[in-house]
Amino acid sequence: MGSVGTVTPQTMQFSEPLPLQSGKALAGYSLMYETYGTLNAERSNAVLVCHALNASHHVAGVHAGQPRSEGWWDNLVGPGKPLDTDRFFVIGINNLGSCFGSTGPRDVNPATGKPYGADFPVVTVEDWVEAQARLLDRLGITQLAAVIGGSLGGMQALGWTLQHPDRVRHCLAIATAPNLSAENIAFNEVARRAIVTDPDFHGGHFYEHGVVPKRGLRVARMIGHITYLSDDVMEKKFGRMLRAEAPDPTRPASYAYTTQDIEFQIESYLRYQGDKFSEYFDANTYLLITRALDYFDPARAHGGDLSAAFARARARFLVVSFTTDWRFSPARSREIVKALLDNRRDVSYAEIDAPHGHDAFLLDDARYHGVVRAYFERIAAEIGTAAPRLADLKLAV
Amino acid sequence: MGSVGTVTPQTMQFSEPLPLQSGKALAGYSLMYETYGTLNAERSNAVLVCHALNASHHVAGVHAGQPRSEGWWDNLVGPGKPLDTDRFFVIGINNLGSCFGSTGPRDVNPATGKPYGADFPVVTVEDWVEAQARLLDRLGITQLAAVIGGSLGGMQALGWTLQHPDRVRHCLAIATAPNLSAENIAFNEVARRAIVTDPDFHGGHFYEHGVVPKRGLRVARMIGHITYLSDDVMEKKFGRMLRAEAPDPTRPASYAYTTQDIEFQIESYLRYQGDKFSEYFDANTYLLITRALDYFDPARAHGGDLSAAFARARARFLVVSFTTDWRFSPARSREIVKALLDNRRDVSYAEIDAPHGHDAFLLDDARYHGVVRAYFERIAAEIGTAAPRLADLKLAV
Repeated sequence: MGSVGTVTPQTMQFSEPLPLQSGKALAGYSLMYETYGTLNAERSNAVLVCHALNASHHVAGVHAGQPRSEGWWDNLVGPGKPLDTDRFFVIGINNLGSCFGSTGPRDVNPATGKPYGADFPVVTVEDWVEAQARLLDRLGITQLAAVIGGSLGGMQALGWTLQHPDRVRHCLAIATAPNLSAENIAFNEVARRAIVTDPDFHGGHFYEHGVVPKRGLRVARMIGHITYLSDDVMEKKFGRMLRAEAPDPTRPASYAYTTQDIEFQIESYLRYQGDKFSEYFDANTYLLITRALDYFDPARAHGGDLSAAFARARARFLVVSFTTDWRFSPARSREIVKALLDNRRDVSYAEIDAPHGHDAFLLDDARYHGVVRAYFERIAAEIGTAAPRLADLKLAV
Repeated sequence: MGSVGTVTPQTMQFSEPLPLQSGKALAGYSLMYETYGTLNAERSNAVLVCHALNASHHVAGVHAGQPRSEGWWDNLVGPGKPLDTDRFFVIGINNLGSCFGSTGPRDVNPATGKPYGADFPVVTVEDWVEAQARLLDRLGITQLAAVIGGSLGGMQALGWTLQHPDRVRHCLAIATAPNLSAENIAFNEVARRAIVTDPDFHGGHFYEHGVVPKRGLRVARMIGHITYLSDDVMEKKFGRMLRAEAPDPTRPASYAYTTQDIEFQIESYLRYQGDKFSEYFDANTYLLITRALDYFDPARAHGGDLSAAFARARARFLVVSFTTDWRFSPARSREIVKALLDNRRDVSYAEIDAPHGHDAFLLDDARYHGVVRAYFERIAAEIGTAAPRLADLKLAV
């Protein structure tokens, strides 16, 4: 197993307006994307990887001159990896409204000559799927071997099977849900309020004021982090350990008795995560992306009947959930599985017993990666892209 | 069952300094308290009710001229209620550092002539128990028939059995835990960061600036509220209902597609709760009380051995938990029960199947109130305070 190596992001310009779910349209825009592996002559081995909240088009490999710039799913995507770039042509696209190269709130609104800021139109999972479809059109890819995503990325993968049923052979929907629960929306809303009520937010037009609502972004990220981790893994990793180390390991360190300074290690961890996030993430993007999560609800147009919603789907599915994920629990994945079975769709379901909570979908768990690898091997066999592997070559000798 | 009627809070002044766990001391202070029912001649029927985060000494009844000013546990405490004020003399005390009448951060620091603000010393559950014990001394109560509390109040009830084992006959510890988990601390820390980083906090000396860090308090309260409710009850109460009502009930209302305005009812509910809280709660008190939660950990001085910690206890116990409470889950209550059983203590344990999450301890659930009522009847019989009840009188005729 290796890395895809150094990769270079590319940009594609779109001048035709993109109609949005909200009724508005985005006049012109660009998408940043990366590809790994080689598109075969039949153009049948393309796999689209959809990203979640703070990720991007940079799925695998590293950027030139940037040490430790591995893509967010580098453990899954690469030569000989579960999503094998020796067999598949993998595409990562930064979503519209994000802050990593595709058109977003930091960019200039052609209508005003100023950054969009809060005026960037609300984008939905459905809108992202349409934007991705246009990019694939331009790459000459009429059908995807598979679309894969975790969390919000899983919602996009599901969306593909509903909006373009004939353009997707397989859908891998990981650690996701058919919609957000009230509790999920509640956490998003608190995070948004922290950002919007930060005096440096300036109604979303903070760029013009030369400031960034870092306080709000920090709090938002801290809340997010708590929901990504399981109670168990937090307990194991941090427990009630104090920041101050005990001078004598047989006697606990003393409490500092402070309300504003760091006392427990978990506090230090969360503050660090919040600080780091506030340095690079765009506040308006945070609002847009959490709203895209809130709005996704394919059953909505069918009176809440998810099975009716999935009647359109034609793909085959792998659904994966993680036992300790309380953000998108296995019960939510089973709703998807049930809706697919109601429609006699071909669906495999794996509930992985992993301790890491929602974050598990990003981690290198042997059972999880084994399931994904096996599923992609099945796809490779089906489309005939099984590359000669070292083991195969030996057998052939 | 009736109400205790109109009640008048009282204040007790203490001039002897209170030594605190932190090593500091509180020079002089006052405690606000209320009592309901009558102390019997033997002074054996006193029950102390300890309060949690945003509650107070005002446990039951109403304040004169204030409609809808029922005490926070009015459904449990009163004539004929589970904690029957016809039989027991019930005492509620506002904790030190709180903002409802007892000495706290808003009060003048005698050392500076200005409000304490962030200089109010850190107070712990142990400190509160000592302050409460002094008040009981002055009331001439040497032994409590019972101490009862839920959540942080339950921690104080447990603390009583460890700090004054011979002064407590019974301890009712409801919806509580032997300490906070890393996740519990994490939620507290995010709430504190929201407050401390609000520019109107001014390092905790906002009183002098004539402002209140309302933004931070709102976010803190919103986070808190999510953790008080169960996922289930939130789903049932709000689900994905939109704020906008559907003009035609057979067709769902349209999304407004907004990132800053309210779209879902759960958002409206949380914002309302946050706004209300920010109008009356003191920001420094919020920091102090969440820290008291963080610091409580009786096992700590015993190398993490909770059974060793409870070796001191002499009381008999009722421990109650609620199945959907994910803040202080039944597993945490069972840790307490196990530690008590390890010490051959007399303990009853009830795990109530209630949908409301942590908030259940404040609600009028028949099974829960039945358990508490039965337990107090046992105590009443034991100390001979069984008041003549209407039913008894009829039988006697």
